[in-house]
Amino acid sequence: MSEQEFEIIERYFKVIGKTSSGVVLGPGDDCAILAFSSDMEVCVSTDTLTEGIHFPENYSASMIASRLVGANLSDLAAMGAMPHSCLIALTIPDAQPNWLAEFSGTLGQLLDHYNLSLVGGNISKGSLSLTMTVLGTVPVGKALTREGARPGDLIYVTGTLGDARLGLNQILSGQEPLGYQASRYNAPTPRLEAGYQLRGVATAMIDISDGLLADLAHLCRASQAGAVVELASVPVSDDLVTAIGDLEARLFALSAGDDYELCFTVPETAVKRLSSLTETSELLMTQVGRIRTESGIDVVDLAGKCINIENPGYRHFS
Amino acid sequence: MSEQEFEIIERYFKVIGKTSSGVVLGPGDDCAILAFSSDMEVCVSTDTLTEGIHFPENYSASMIASRLVGANLSDLAAMGAMPHSCLIALTIPDAQPNWLAEFSGTLGQLLDHYNLSLVGGNISKGSLSLTMTVLGTVPVGKALTREGARPGDLIYVTGTLGDARLGLNQILSGQEPLGYQASRYNAPTPRLEAGYQLRGVATAMIDISDGLLADLAHLCRASQAGAVVELASVPVSDDLVTAIGDLEARLFALSAGDDYELCFTVPETAVKRLSSLTETSELLMTQVGRIRTESGIDVVDLAGKCINIENPGYRHFS
Repeated sequence: MSEQEFEIIERYFKVIGKTSSGVVLGPGDDCAILAFSSDMEVCVSTDTLTEGIHFPENYSASMIASRLVGANLSDLAAMGAMPHSCLIALTIPDAQPNWLAEFSGTLGQLLDHYNLSLVGGNISKGSLSLTMTVLGTVPVGKALTREGARPGDLIYVTGTLGDARLGLNQILSGQEPLGYQASRYNAPTPRLEAGYQLRGVATAMIDISDGLLADLAHLCRASQAGAVVELASVPVSDDLVTAIGDLEARLFALSAGDDYELCFTVPETAVKRLSSLTETSELLMTQVGRIRTESGIDVVDLAGKCINIENPGYRHFS
Repeated sequence: MSEQEFEIIERYFKVIGKTSSGVVLGPGDDCAILAFSSDMEVCVSTDTLTEGIHFPENYSASMIASRLVGANLSDLAAMGAMPHSCLIALTIPDAQPNWLAEFSGTLGQLLDHYNLSLVGGNISKGSLSLTMTVLGTVPVGKALTREGARPGDLIYVTGTLGDARLGLNQILSGQEPLGYQASRYNAPTPRLEAGYQLRGVATAMIDISDGLLADLAHLCRASQAGAVVELASVPVSDDLVTAIGDLEARLFALSAGDDYELCFTVPETAVKRLSSLTETSELLMTQVGRIRTESGIDVVDLAGKCINIENPGYRHFS
């Protein structure tokens, strides 16, 4: 979610309607949380991908399906929720059999892989755009939201950051052959397993779709806190360092979106539990900073000196 | 849902993925039915409105909100489900404060009116299009689907048909002042109360969004049956008759969409129960035909003679 989208939601949509008793958590987090039963809560989220904005023009139908599912399931991962079902509203300029066969073929593989049921949808004519709504389940009270971070908590991220945006740059420049980074953009991997494991360990969590600084800012705002991020700790891949240099890679990783990694906070007391998780997990989890009382985010160098960051994230309407 | 949308779903989307144990009813009906608890089922549906296709260009933000909520809640009504919560994915060319204020203002009134919680959404840049996902609840096993109609069942519709399409014609021709028909197009009334009352009475139900014949055809196909519709019984308003004549009005009403009335079937044995419902309800319920074994739909005159109908409904991609 961009800064501007956040502002529009705050100004026009958070103030309308009332929240009924069946709603545990309303809009503003990665998912809403709904209560339909006494042992399980339902997490639900909706996400739109539009041609030319969320994926390049003439992008393949298969990759659109991969990005659609990856981005949406990442919202469930960020809550610690397990995929249940989904609905897809497809707006297409015309009904091309090849496109539909390729899209539905890849979609079918992903539905099977994630044990996700496609339960509904809509097909209409218009410029290419896809809106997916996902539903997931989580034990009552165990969902991880953006709200629980406390001053002193350590900030972690999964994986490495910046690869997907480097991959997008490769795709847009027509580079051949495309490497691992392009696949990170084309087919993001939702960190579902990490999400489940972090229930009861993390105090707050968000997925990184618009860039670490932008998304961490949402987590901090929801938790009424701020953060210090150590630039040298931001995890980047060797390839990204090779491509643009170490310092540039870490600066790039601060605001590069589309990685769909998780950013979460843990109290000092839970670091040991987290260590035992990271030992058994194949997924890198790296401490990148610490939550503080003072609002805002400072990025600091090894000496603790603030670094001025120009671009705090993606703005959809700028 | 148009014929062509139906064909695309059948060919490309019904064949992929598997349905998990938490899914009572998958795609193809007005809503999917999900099981999250032992006493209540969740109905979920998604619907897209696109400028120039589902509403005229330069249509007011307030009316877009009314059509969006009306059309989506009509899918819940068609299942006999009660509104619970919704998510809205908004694609807008730019963030105009006036438009956003008007849209969210009307939306807020409707959320309050229908006791519907807005629990999430998405805002992205692109040509104007809105996708809403609604969730509703219904007691376990009580949802009304398209599948249960049996040969001999009587076919009923609520309200009068054709008014909304006449209203759209008035809007498009710039008529002033606009009458009741335009309001039927601008602000469709989902027949939620009728939906609740018909639980345990109707054998099958669908809402009329693309026209009586097109939507009844879906109900018949799902029920593996056909139907005979008596043209003279199709309920039309006095205004529609005045505007285009009695016969033309009924023919127009057969394929005019956007009314969001309900079409449902009841066995002969339930006619008495239905009569007691219609006596207390302010909503007109009119018998328009009968389900038969033979597939297809025949429209007949008072003498029982078949009438040739050219346009069976709206085709999104023609």
